[in-house]
Order: sequence, then structure tokens, then C-alpha cells
Amino acid sequence: MSLSYSSHVPDPVALITVATAEHQNVMTAAWATPVSADPPILMVSIRPSRFTHDLILEAKEFGVSILADDQKKLSEIAGTLSGKKKDKLALPGFDTFAAKKIKAPLVKGAHAWFECVLHSHHTAGDHTAFYGIVIEMKVDETKSPLVLFQHKYYALGEVKGVYP
Amino acid sequence: MSLSYSSHVPDPVALITVATAEHQNVMTAAWATPVSADPPILMVSIRPSRFTHDLILEAKEFGVSILADDQKKLSEIAGTLSGKKKDKLALPGFDTFAAKKIKAPLVKGAHAWFECVLHSHHTAGDHTAFYGIVIEMKVDETKSPLVLFQHKYYALGEVKGVYP
Repeated sequence: MSLSYSSHVPDPVALITVATAEHQNVMTAAWATPVSADPPILMVSIRPSRFTHDLILEAKEFGVSILADDQKKLSEIAGTLSGKKKDKLALPGFDTFAAKKIKAPLVKGAHAWFECVLHSHHTAGDHTAFYGIVIEMKVDETKSPLVLFQHKYYALGEVKGVYP
Repeated sequence: MSLSYSSHVPDPVALITVATAEHQNVMTAAWATPVSADPPILMVSIRPSRFTHDLILEAKEFGVSILADDQKKLSEIAGTLSGKKKDKLALPGFDTFAAKKIKAPLVKGAHAWFECVLHSHHTAGDHTAFYGIVIEMKVDETKSPLVLFQHKYYALGEVKGVYP
């Protein structure tokens, strides 16, 4: 297997959820990161061909569930099926709960959840970067996050130090 | 210690390097991720007050060294000192090598290196997101990356599966 440039950057595994009056969907996104401290803003990069892409433009909000290290199965399902053909959130395993301030549901069992309202978006290459202001969040401190690197899922390992 | 929203997303630890005719600098950035496959584009989020910010706008290119799990000391130095006062790249430990296509040096001992030309930038909140097209890259497969999570540095741990 040839590894692409992007596989050499360790990434979180985020499930992006969105709901409009007519549709809901969930997709896997590894290209997600905080980008601003105040206001808190998360950036998620999504291909225009993905069902979620236009749903976010319509809903103007989205949910982010940062998967825990025992949830790689959900990443696989949400990353390989298209929501255009199937309501993935209705599949077994996708237990969700209602968000507080947005219409999209959030995925149970994750490490952290962020409810975002769309701040802006920026096209770069073959993806659109969606910027969402975090208006609500929740954390499960008993869960540790999944990390994607070189096409493999990892748990966190040895602590190497404390950030100053 | 109160943890901010952003600490709950696992991040890479990237050293961003830049050089103009008059200055060079290195800074630590954890808010960095791939955002496009074709062309390959990396996004790095940087505060306008950082010395590196305006240097990138001037140089229109930057280097990204993805730190290995034995390099947290370099992250600390590059993340706490300002290049406005001190040439961090001249400090002990910052062994660098010349990039192939950009003026900025790259940091030895990392897992991967990307040479980027500025594609665009996008302001969101208190940071600017710089988008750089990757025009050259190099990987050291013997090194594993450092991951930042909840203000701690981690090595990768147990493999949980293979990305489909």
C-alpha cells in the first residue's frame, strides 16, 4: 500500500453529524482540528461530493463526536457507506443522543462532543474547510481518543511529558 | 488545570519554519492538519501576534516538520520563546537541514517533513489558517509521531485496527 502525504500526520477520528428538516447524516472525518481559542472554533475538511457537505451548508450547524479508542467500527461504517443511499444513523451501533443546541444528534460512547454553528467555509483543493463556532461541549473523561496514522487506528501510548 | 475545548482533540505536534531575506523562525503548532488530497494541502493555524505569522505572509512558503515521539523538548523551546527576541533555530538541539524547494530549513530527527507554498489564508476567530500546497515531502519511517492531548505529549500506543 502506498501511503499518501496526509497519512504521515496523526489525526483525530471525528464523526460529523448534521440534520436538516428532511435529512440527517453522519460521516467520518480525520481532517479536523481546533483553529481558534476565543471564540472556540473547530475546522473540518469535507469533499463537496459527500452528502454531509451540502447538508452543512443548508443546516448552518454540525456536531462533532471525537471517537474513543474502542469505537473504530463506527469510523469504518460512517466512512465507507454514503448517507445518500442509507441512513447510517439508523444502523445498529450508532446510538445517539440529542444535542442541546443543534438539531444534529451526537454519537454515544465518544470521548468528546462539540456542537458547532457554521462560522465560515474556505475552499482549498478538492475539499471545503468548514469552520464551526463551538457553542456547547461535553467530555467523557473516562474515554481516551482514537488516533489515525498511516492508515491504522491507534490508542494513545506512553506519556512523554506535560505541555508547558 | 482547567482544560480548554481544544485540548480534547488529539493533535500532531508540528514545527513550522519560515525564512525571508532578513529573518528566519521556528514555532510549535498543534493545530495543523491535511485538508486536501489533490493537490496535497496542509493547513496550519497561527495567531497574528506570532512572529511566524507575518513572515509566512512575506515568504509565501513554509516548512512543516512533524515531530517524532522523542522530540518534545523541541516543541517546548519553539512553543515558549518568541523569535522576535531570539533566533531559536540557532539554539542547541535545533539541528536543521536545507529544504529542497523552499528557503526555510527543516528540523532534523522528525517523522516527516513537508515543504509548502502558500495557497491561501483564512481568518477565523483569533487565529489565521494558512493553507500550503505540499510541493516536496520526506518521511523517516523509523520514527513515530508525537501526539498532544489534554496538555500532555503521548507516543502512539496499541494498534486498534486498519483503516479500510
